Amino acid sequence: MNKKAGRSAQSGRRKVGGSFTKVRRLPKRGAYDLETIYSVLDAALYCHVAHVIEKRPVATPTLHWRHGNQLYWHGSAASRMLKANSAGGAVCLTATLVDGFVLARSGFNHSMNYRSAMCFGQPKEITDNTAKSVALEHFLERWFPGRWATLRPPTRKELAATRVLTMPIDEASAKIRTGGPHDPEKDVDWPVWAGVIPLHLEARAAVPADDYRVAATPPALPAFRNSR
Amino acid sequence: MNKKAGRSAQSGRRKVGGSFTKVRRLPKRGAYDLETIYSVLDAALYCHVAHVIEKRPVATPTLHWRHGNQLYWHGSAASRMLKANSAGGAVCLTATLVDGFVLARSGFNHSMNYRSAMCFGQPKEITDNTAKSVALEHFLERWFPGRWATLRPPTRKELAATRVLTMPIDEASAKIRTGGPHDPEKDVDWPVWAGVIPLHLEARAAVPADDYRVAATPPALPAFRNSR
Repeated sequence: MNKKAGRSAQSGRRKVGGSFTKVRRLPKRGAYDLETIYSVLDAALYCHVAHVIEKRPVATPTLHWRHGNQLYWHGSAASRMLKANSAGGAVCLTATLVDGFVLARSGFNHSMNYRSAMCFGQPKEITDNTAKSVALEHFLERWFPGRWATLRPPTRKELAATRVLTMPIDEASAKIRTGGPHDPEKDVDWPVWAGVIPLHLEARAAVPADDYRVAATPPALPAFRNSR
Repeated sequence: MNKKAGRSAQSGRRKVGGSFTKVRRLPKRGAYDLETIYSVLDAALYCHVAHVIEKRPVATPTLHWRHGNQLYWHGSAASRMLKANSAGGAVCLTATLVDGFVLARSGFNHSMNYRSAMCFGQPKEITDNTAKSVALEHFLERWFPGRWATLRPPTRKELAATRVLTMPIDEASAKIRTGGPHDPEKDVDWPVWAGVIPLHLEARAAVPADDYRVAATPPALPAFRNSR
């Protein structure tokens, strides 16, 4: 089991698991303490929201952010997903980071290192324009600290065209795998390479817009919390 | 609109959209031709499968692979997700790549460059051990060509403990955004940096397992199809 989840789980912090969220497969990889769940949500740039539209499950990619114990995501007021979400249906927001390929001596023991957080609930829409603007500021500041104050401020029309949803992190779990392959001793001498190939998401040099013509400093590149 | 999706959509290839899959938000970003949908599915390492468990939507991260017009994913025979999937319920498999932050002069015009593919259907389980083994070989060969033949071969017990699901790519859509910000002319002189910060997923130097003691060549690192 990863040391981080183990340490956090023993720290006595508030836990948010429930019978539905319980990690059933490889339960040693599961964690229910908020410290671990927050760390995964905060490291992940985007998530997938599962919801039911016309009685069918749909997984929609979107960016999320967290402020305190609240999760947020946003989009166009015309979005089918956000209309369904703001109507009060249940959702599952899952954010996942892949940290490495785990190569073993057998296909069966191959695995991935990853971090994922699964949050369940019924989102509510933020309708007040000031609250909406504050939430969007938190969103942008997460990746580009200081940028919000330098932008052309939002108009009422733009805020009206933007839907922001929020949900408390009340029923959630994290699942984390770290480390090398776990081959049985009888397989260890099989003549094939075994180990981990780490994966990293990285920001590259900023590319100015075609119509860029002022002299401003490019923002610092976001430093993703990749695995060690 | 991205040029690639546009070109593909005009190439007369078989299309797989339907009234449910239609891209409603920013429809110019949508594509329904298989060439584009395959390119996104093949570039993405992992996906999220939305399904309904105990009447609630759940988004589960997993690795997928494609062979011809079939999508595949796998896991433990004991997995709650795969049990639900093999029982014939509808799913939505969405694979997403983030290619860059798009920074505009206003918060409202900020965006992301991304590629995503959404595939709908009812998965079937592959129960025949030979077919299962062939499917798993395709999976590993996708990222590590030549590796399968060098591994300790799968046992019948291991194949029985592995569930493989498959679904034809019959109802699907892709959504792609490329390029810089789209600010109105009146915002262009706002004194803030604007442009794109590209994002790349990369494999790093392979790390041998703690119990690695044979002399084998590490596999070539997977080259992810990052955005240009």
